[in-house]
Amino acid sequence: MIKLIILDGKKLKEELLDTYKEKIIKENIQASLAVILVGDNEASKIYIKNKEKTCKKIGIDFKLYHLEENTEEKEVQELIRKLNQDESINGIILQSPVPQKINFDACSSLIDPLKDVDGFTKENIYKLYLNEETLMPCTVLGIITLLKTYQINLDGLNALIIGRGNIVGHPLSLALLNENATVTVAHSHTKNLKDLCLKSDLIIAATGKVNLITEDMVKKDSIVVDVGVSRIDGHIKGDVDFQNVQKKCAYITPNPGGVGPMTVAMIMHNVLKAYEMQKGEKKNG
Amino acid sequence: MIKLIILDGKKLKEELLDTYKEKIIKENIQASLAVILVGDNEASKIYIKNKEKTCKKIGIDFKLYHLEENTEEKEVQELIRKLNQDESINGIILQSPVPQKINFDACSSLIDPLKDVDGFTKENIYKLYLNEETLMPCTVLGIITLLKTYQINLDGLNALIIGRGNIVGHPLSLALLNENATVTVAHSHTKNLKDLCLKSDLIIAATGKVNLITEDMVKKDSIVVDVGVSRIDGHIKGDVDFQNVQKKCAYITPNPGGVGPMTVAMIMHNVLKAYEMQKGEKKNG
Repeated sequence: MIKLIILDGKKLKEELLDTYKEKIIKENIQASLAVILVGDNEASKIYIKNKEKTCKKIGIDFKLYHLEENTEEKEVQELIRKLNQDESINGIILQSPVPQKINFDACSSLIDPLKDVDGFTKENIYKLYLNEETLMPCTVLGIITLLKTYQINLDGLNALIIGRGNIVGHPLSLALLNENATVTVAHSHTKNLKDLCLKSDLIIAATGKVNLITEDMVKKDSIVVDVGVSRIDGHIKGDVDFQNVQKKCAYITPNPGGVGPMTVAMIMHNVLKAYEMQKGEKKNG
Repeated sequence: MIKLIILDGKKLKEELLDTYKEKIIKENIQASLAVILVGDNEASKIYIKNKEKTCKKIGIDFKLYHLEENTEEKEVQELIRKLNQDESINGIILQSPVPQKINFDACSSLIDPLKDVDGFTKENIYKLYLNEETLMPCTVLGIITLLKTYQINLDGLNALIIGRGNIVGHPLSLALLNENATVTVAHSHTKNLKDLCLKSDLIIAATGKVNLITEDMVKKDSIVVDVGVSRIDGHIKGDVDFQNVQKKCAYITPNPGGVGPMTVAMIMHNVLKAYEMQKGEKKNG
């Protein structure tokens, strides 16, 4: 009988938030996060509400810049430049998606890398590629933090990432390589996914295909991380057939309740890290 | 009996150079490559001589900027800035290694991405990561060009890269992913290299460990690319035990005579591409 360990992101999130809150009080940290929302996407509003709630809970100042649907790209860019200059702002997030007439990449690339708490600017991805200290994409950092907290040694582990998107799969492949894992990236053109899964110590599924990973694809004692988010009849479904896969593996993330909460916690982590980095810059500058 | 095909980089290099020469004459292209050498490293001088010879052969203007061993970093940076501005220069290479008191990365990062024919600047690596059109690192481009010329379909292929250095292994992993291969990166922390090799359709060894890849590690009909360069008693040795591995695989690079010549050809390719890109910029600008 294998002892199954649930990688409880929800619980770890709360523990981390408590630590951050304590640190903020103890060190009298005045950190702030600015979120830019253009238009009225309902899902975006829920995500932003969640960030706001989490900020308030631990004592990070939250500022929402809500621009109208018909805002010009130039105005978004001007706002970002202003926030870059504003010393009272430590982290900047341009909420995705933006209205069609605005080029998301052209705007988000203007965010000061030291305030880029999403970790997606050219400078921060390049640092991740070079294995240099950086603000890492939150979901990627969340996955690595979750695995490390459960004492999983990534060094030399055979890790399979399924999906190569720029939010999770692709930057995760850089991050896991930095942790000295042997990293395989599979995707829609991969021919022998089941074989690859059966050879892997760690499977991270980030495709959005419901129940892609089934019991027969997972070797005994493996570690399974489910990053997939699909909405089916109002319920969130992941990439992993949790009910059956859990019978075989040693560690598994629930979904929801695994990677998702970690992402939110890591935004807070990055705001605090950005705060420290900016303080260091000021001292050196 | 398997029909073995030798991936003849030396021959392909000559064919490509003929094509470039023809194009340069036909389109009356006035392209130029500037190489900066600091100090008197003997190996560097041989590499540079080779670049010069190849440039002359096809009609690219070659300019060597030979600075003294005790040159200040500031002077190297000033030269790069000057060459960036100089419209008669299309490609710039800062020859590695540089004397200890000069920070190579701090200098090379100043090279205009449009003139970065080595393909290692932040901008060009980030474009490679995003699968956007870019000047690719020459050895990486050489490997992909060699494989494609021999009609090897990379789409869905199980590719194993051994080595994660920033010159070959790491950028190659991005490039092969862009070609829709299923990519695994192995390295010194990898635990089961033989197993991984035996599961791979394509093995690319870039470690510098002589004869790391032996016959028993390679599956029948596989493709083996040897990027290793070790000097043993004045001879160049690769990572692959060519004599024995060739008995089992379908395609193999000789070494020397495989990837090495392709790298030189791709420098010329990149100078011509840089020339075209700069012409386009001027037209649009």
